[in-house]
Amino acid sequence: MLKDFNLDSVIRKIPDFPIPGVLFYDITSIMMDPEAFSWVIDKSVEIYKEKSIGAIAAVESRGFIFGAPLAEKLGIPLILVRKSGKLPGDTIKTSYKLEYGEAEIEIHKADIPQGENVLIVDDLLATGGTLKAAAELLEEGGAVITDVFSVIGLPFLNYNKVLKGLNITTLIDYDSE
Amino acid sequence: MLKDFNLDSVIRKIPDFPIPGVLFYDITSIMMDPEAFSWVIDKSVEIYKEKSIGAIAAVESRGFIFGAPLAEKLGIPLILVRKSGKLPGDTIKTSYKLEYGEAEIEIHKADIPQGENVLIVDDLLATGGTLKAAAELLEEGGAVITDVFSVIGLPFLNYNKVLKGLNITTLIDYDSE
Repeated sequence: MLKDFNLDSVIRKIPDFPIPGVLFYDITSIMMDPEAFSWVIDKSVEIYKEKSIGAIAAVESRGFIFGAPLAEKLGIPLILVRKSGKLPGDTIKTSYKLEYGEAEIEIHKADIPQGENVLIVDDLLATGGTLKAAAELLEEGGAVITDVFSVIGLPFLNYNKVLKGLNITTLIDYDSE
Repeated sequence: MLKDFNLDSVIRKIPDFPIPGVLFYDITSIMMDPEAFSWVIDKSVEIYKEKSIGAIAAVESRGFIFGAPLAEKLGIPLILVRKSGKLPGDTIKTSYKLEYGEAEIEIHKADIPQGENVLIVDDLLATGGTLKAAAELLEEGGAVITDVFSVIGLPFLNYNKVLKGLNITTLIDYDSE
């Protein structure tokens, strides 16, 4: 079992980004500290190595930073969940609501393993809207979604409600500032 | 020394993407094959582990997929080179020309290690425009740039000329179709 690590000490908090009144939890400061970044990756490996997971689905683009090393270490495929128009092959796509406006994500259809568990990975869980859309899209494509992993969780933004029924693992949670 | 791997066999070629007449070399098929993805990462570790590199700079967003595992395995910081407006801290930025129009990239100023070698990582080298802009920006910020790593190279698009003076390593090159 991996030793504990004070992850809070390496997460930079930036007020008023991207808009006034929002406190932004910056994960780039984790990657500036190789010990911290390795701990995050090793911890995610420890959590999922005994579980029956067929593939990782990583959400563009910060999800790639944590999903890629995890997939490589678990020896399972890495599926990209991308914003519309960036994947060259045949895709399935879905739109979902943001606070203002809409967003669209897509996944290569052929990359989705039929009937297998896919773990969705992102850097930060807030409202859970993007991850819910990703989970629904992967299930529509034939995968089974039971687990979601995120480095940071902001439970006061209610991702637990939006992602009800899924096993959500975060390495650190922050309450409303 | 790592055994050879037939990387070409796992790179999907998609005609007429993103526009008619262009043959797109798709790296997502590498990540669907865990053996291939591990080989790419292990190969990059083998190439750079004995070199004196202080940090990896990975270019958004496919560069993150190869840069993150490499940085983690080398035990050095990972600096993000992002499109404008996505990094929350103090940044330096630069604009550069694309075939049509302009693009802007930025880097957290405080993440750039003064006087140290930074290796720039991306998935595919074509005209070299983005990597040249990244190299100049990192040098402006105080780093030393001698090496560039890309999984795929398209030398017929003349990146060698644009990145003259840098040590460019690619794992596979494709000639003009």
